[in-house]
Amino acid sequence: MTITLFIATSLDGYIAGPDDDLSWLFTDADYGFSEFYETVDGLIMGRGTYDVVRKMGKWPYPGKPTYVVSKNTDFSVDTPDTKAATGELEDLEVELVDLGLKNVWLVGGGELVRSFLDQQRIDRIVISLHPVLLGRGVALFAGGFPGMRLKLEHAESFDSGLVQLTYLTD
Amino acid sequence: MTITLFIATSLDGYIAGPDDDLSWLFTDADYGFSEFYETVDGLIMGRGTYDVVRKMGKWPYPGKPTYVVSKNTDFSVDTPDTKAATGELEDLEVELVDLGLKNVWLVGGGELVRSFLDQQRIDRIVISLHPVLLGRGVALFAGGFPGMRLKLEHAESFDSGLVQLTYLTD
Repeated sequence: MTITLFIATSLDGYIAGPDDDLSWLFTDADYGFSEFYETVDGLIMGRGTYDVVRKMGKWPYPGKPTYVVSKNTDFSVDTPDTKAATGELEDLEVELVDLGLKNVWLVGGGELVRSFLDQQRIDRIVISLHPVLLGRGVALFAGGFPGMRLKLEHAESFDSGLVQLTYLTD
Repeated sequence: MTITLFIATSLDGYIAGPDDDLSWLFTDADYGFSEFYETVDGLIMGRGTYDVVRKMGKWPYPGKPTYVVSKNTDFSVDTPDTKAATGELEDLEVELVDLGLKNVWLVGGGELVRSFLDQQRIDRIVISLHPVLLGRGVALFAGGFPGMRLKLEHAESFDSGLVQLTYLTD
């Protein structure tokens, strides 16, 4: 099973501006997202990301099993094909492997990414680097995890100024 | 006069690891640095960066006027062609323009970069993005400045996995 962090950031490393502002994200093209999403057979996201996604309207990931990680054991979900994951990430990973999932999308956010990096559970990182400095917001890499070398698998720049970088972990 | 921030970072946005560790910087090639340096007729750096550079051995920038910014009005320098700049950045910029400088390299570090961004004094940003996550260290973009759109001028990736990105500010 491969876990891919596929995410957009500003040049200064934010996944959202103040008050979860996402208005800076390019919507003129999908920058490979649809193609990536077709390969995905499961999603993992943190509780904060789940709340942001829900506020955006209709649940966008029907038909794909989605696990929402929360430390709150009372946490429950009410969206299609969604499960609350309140245990250890290790157990979650075992569950996804048992389900036969092959390509899991780690959606975010920063805190969950740190836990995954800390436990070296990310196989691939695809960052859509937007040509913008936000100056403040929610950091993708909040720090506090062990350093690691990456392998650049692919780099592509677009006319809009977006640069998409794909890295493999060891 | 053009002020260019030319700097190397990790994928998670650090310009140095813990204890000013720079051992992760690629030294197998110069990634356009020599070519850039030839165009430079003046340097600006912060006090912390100055201390790091001095500790690395012989002063590497003889013959290029270098201004070391410090808030400490007693701060003095003892390296070739170097001046302490303890006043306002605005006055420093006027001084450099009066000197007839055309291409100034803003060397770093994070705190000075924030001041320059805050005052919108950077014209160009060249980032040599290393394929590594450091997990902690000295952040390039520590935040706390106004957001701004950038224009991607150039993107180039190398076999080593380094990606060099050039942006223009408005």
